Amino acid sequence: MLSAIENASVKKKLQDAFLSQMQFAPDTEYHLAGALRETIGRPGSMVRAELAYRSGLSSKLGGDRSECLAISIEYFHTASLLFDDLPYMDNAMHRRGHVCVHHVFGEGAAILAALALINRAYALLWKATAELKPELQSHVLQCVERHLGVAGVLNGQSQDLYYSSVSPVFRIPQRVALGKTVPLIRLALILPALIGDVPERETRQLCRLAVSWGLGYQTLDDLKDILHSPEQGGKTVARDAHLDRPNMAIMIGVNEAFRYLDRLMEISGRIVLRLIRGKASLAFLQAFQEQFAREIATLSESRQSVTL
Amino acid sequence: MLSAIENASVKKKLQDAFLSQMQFAPDTEYHLAGALRETIGRPGSMVRAELAYRSGLSSKLGGDRSECLAISIEYFHTASLLFDDLPYMDNAMHRRGHVCVHHVFGEGAAILAALALINRAYALLWKATAELKPELQSHVLQCVERHLGVAGVLNGQSQDLYYSSVSPVFRIPQRVALGKTVPLIRLALILPALIGDVPERETRQLCRLAVSWGLGYQTLDDLKDILHSPEQGGKTVARDAHLDRPNMAIMIGVNEAFRYLDRLMEISGRIVLRLIRGKASLAFLQAFQEQFAREIATLSESRQSVTL
Repeated sequence: MLSAIENASVKKKLQDAFLSQMQFAPDTEYHLAGALRETIGRPGSMVRAELAYRSGLSSKLGGDRSECLAISIEYFHTASLLFDDLPYMDNAMHRRGHVCVHHVFGEGAAILAALALINRAYALLWKATAELKPELQSHVLQCVERHLGVAGVLNGQSQDLYYSSVSPVFRIPQRVALGKTVPLIRLALILPALIGDVPERETRQLCRLAVSWGLGYQTLDDLKDILHSPEQGGKTVARDAHLDRPNMAIMIGVNEAFRYLDRLMEISGRIVLRLIRGKASLAFLQAFQEQFAREIATLSESRQSVTL
Repeated sequence: MLSAIENASVKKKLQDAFLSQMQFAPDTEYHLAGALRETIGRPGSMVRAELAYRSGLSSKLGGDRSECLAISIEYFHTASLLFDDLPYMDNAMHRRGHVCVHHVFGEGAAILAALALINRAYALLWKATAELKPELQSHVLQCVERHLGVAGVLNGQSQDLYYSSVSPVFRIPQRVALGKTVPLIRLALILPALIGDVPERETRQLCRLAVSWGLGYQTLDDLKDILHSPEQGGKTVARDAHLDRPNMAIMIGVNEAFRYLDRLMEISGRIVLRLIRGKASLAFLQAFQEQFAREIATLSESRQSVTL
């Protein structure tokens, strides 16, 4: 287990890097600068960054390279949130307890800020891998492209967005989550492993863990969308029912969604134990598993017999 | 000078690559797949791709690597057009003689298709440089980031977009063009030079050429926005006046804009000659210069005493 102090110092380090890795000149156009400043000034839980950073350390990548990977993945994630909130997408009003950036600085500025984060994210990834052998670099780039490109998160986003136009027979929120939520979590876990050249057996287990966690994370998010008040969530809620988007809790009901979450947590718990038995430096995964379990328990306690 | 046949075969090769380098699975979400298919099915003039490809060959990068660079830069450009046409940006109806992709498949699909192109563009760039020494790779990535990031084309786009909110004293369309149009042309010219390790003197001249051509290209575009009918332009015209966007021809008048273009062409003509004297394999630049001059002449002849 990680001590609370060590935990806090890693979080602080990554939050600082989240801010400092996105530099821009004082004469940057006002709206773009404002959108960027607000975005990097309000980091989220940074769970993907922390996962990637700790995975990097456990794969002996060193602090600097691990940080590059961590912030890169967090920038990709943050950019996806900026796009998600736009009127054509989720048409959200709030994010992280504040009015969305596009309402403050304009939709164009939000798009350009997201592109700036993506640009920076690729530069950080590139920097983290420039000294690897060409063959390994090529594996890394294929992995990144598969996860972030049209075969990965973009297709997942598109399925999420146009869910209502899909035949009900094929409406499986799981499929959407696999495309939308799993890729960045998987990237956070396996990119450091790939660069650190860990045994393939470990990478395969990490992939399985990402699937369980990713599906679980999306289900928890779906439940929050239904059970949270806007104050609790810090973002626009009840949007899935409103927009006819895939939502596991709407599809199978709140109680069944919690049971599904329990099963996923059981699976991920077993994988985590197996991974740690094989490599003690992966112990940080247990802390994430426990943190996740606590979040589920908190939401479960807070629900007041809401059944759909 | 390039023969017409050789010219046509390079264009065909690049058009084919523009289509084939963006593969996606048959089960890709309908709207995203449609937006992508339409976009890559309608290449524009591909002038940036051709510049990068020929620059690559002249810097002895070989056909495959030159093609990677060329298509990468063309994908970045194409993505920027998809974003440009969105309602928040230029709110365009037509592009390349057809209804804009976002009107056919939705704004969300247009955004995701643009992101797919960007993702693929980075992968191609990365592929083209993975075998370089780490130090050179690091130069390349810094160059790419500077041109495409918040210090480059994104700031230019933002200045273009929020031009009306800038104090009239600082309203200089040139500054916007330097941020918006020059970077991708410069990248097409100097990225192959950087990778091919050409003497710095040559790279400096190529940078100067990119500035003249970029400013010229933007001025020509500004003139077309005023002088063309929609049928001639294939895209939404007269948008600059409508949206209060920077337009050199609106600012200084049509006749003065043509004179400004002549001066830019004089400068670029001299740079091209100097470059070719230093390295005969740069002769292709002369063909671009002449092609550009022909376009200006055609527009100049077609104008019917329109003076603003």
